[in-house]
Amino acid sequence: MAYELYYWDGIPGRGEFVRLALEEAGADYVDVARKDTAAMMKIMASRTEQHIPFAPPFLRDGNVLISHVANILFYLGPKLGLAPQDETLRFFANGLQLTITDFLVEAHDTHHPIAVSQYYEEQKDPAKARAASFIDERLPKYLGYFERVLRQNPHGDRHSVGDSLSYVDLSLFQVIEGLLYAFPRAMKRYEEKYPALAALRDAVRERPNIKRYLTSERRLAFNEFGIFRHYPELDRDGS
Amino acid sequence: MAYELYYWDGIPGRGEFVRLALEEAGADYVDVARKDTAAMMKIMASRTEQHIPFAPPFLRDGNVLISHVANILFYLGPKLGLAPQDETLRFFANGLQLTITDFLVEAHDTHHPIAVSQYYEEQKDPAKARAASFIDERLPKYLGYFERVLRQNPHGDRHSVGDSLSYVDLSLFQVIEGLLYAFPRAMKRYEEKYPALAALRDAVRERPNIKRYLTSERRLAFNEFGIFRHYPELDRDGS
Repeated sequence: MAYELYYWDGIPGRGEFVRLALEEAGADYVDVARKDTAAMMKIMASRTEQHIPFAPPFLRDGNVLISHVANILFYLGPKLGLAPQDETLRFFANGLQLTITDFLVEAHDTHHPIAVSQYYEEQKDPAKARAASFIDERLPKYLGYFERVLRQNPHGDRHSVGDSLSYVDLSLFQVIEGLLYAFPRAMKRYEEKYPALAALRDAVRERPNIKRYLTSERRLAFNEFGIFRHYPELDRDGS
Repeated sequence: MAYELYYWDGIPGRGEFVRLALEEAGADYVDVARKDTAAMMKIMASRTEQHIPFAPPFLRDGNVLISHVANILFYLGPKLGLAPQDETLRFFANGLQLTITDFLVEAHDTHHPIAVSQYYEEQKDPAKARAASFIDERLPKYLGYFERVLRQNPHGDRHSVGDSLSYVDLSLFQVIEGLLYAFPRAMKRYEEKYPALAALRDAVRERPNIKRYLTSERRLAFNEFGIFRHYPELDRDGS
């Protein structure tokens, strides 16, 4: 039976991290809410569902309903051949994915530091202050961390965990794509500063299934409704 | 061998969610960084460690080094008898714990909406705006969700997952304690609005191991350095 992915239509957002894993593995899945948002809302509002999710994305696999990107990938990883065989390494992969989760929250909050319920235009001044601290302090801290993770991998710097591609590598690709879209000035010299991450991003982009996916209509373009938004006034040269 | 927990000394913070599980289970553990912060910093700065954590808390169990609260609890839960036997339910528990993670980020950002590197006093105005949206919109959304999870549990509303105590229940206890400390006005009528959550909090507090722990010196008091801070000017009546 096909996996059912549920996520807001129109933005790559958090759903994209799950999509990339499904696409790389050539898994059979339906992106339910891109055609039927009501079906997604119905599950969230259900009074009988035993495992109600707080928010999308969530995944249905038969009787199993799983929410949160890192949790979905922890579950799917072994099934899709995109997680380490070794259990200890799987927990390390999950830790990395959760660091990506934290990073995404911070990237999102550059344009929404005050309230998700308000428009960006209503919080532009605090957004500028938050984006400045994100670019000056947080961006180099996170990217520097992932660069170190790649370099300290005893199996070589081509993968973040173990000796083969995992969902974490796919997620790091998406994070970099998003940052390049949102903050081109801040990211200008990223290949020089984070060579292992840059090589990972290039390698993922060239994988046959990913390459095919990126040019398909299933791939949603970044835009100003999701996590990564290009507001030139929030961008600035990195330190 | 004793588990080694690493977390900032002086605040309950995120480390407390791991401590509560270890204490409830009567596990043998050392709270390393409360006596030796340098040992924690050394692991984070290590150039040879294969599984470097981005930030505390992290846990060492022999050769295994695991970071992030939800990941640590996913790992520890079965070992401590604080996770469901059923694998599907474990993923549901992890989803709930990740919702708690998100909730904690939002609770933290009420006093730090702009930059973690700046003092609260430097971001007081945006903090007031963010706290208002937290109290009016986010707090009822999260607490309402967990109340529903308890009520829709087919095994009854005494536990969030399955038919026995899990680490998620212990974490919900800590979340409510923190909210009562930080936002007493906003939480004034919480027992009336969220009766199942209130009953869960009371039940956890009365568990013998937890009760003993709460009066021990191992339990750190809430204060104005952690996630939950009592700044009266950020508190207000809930809707």
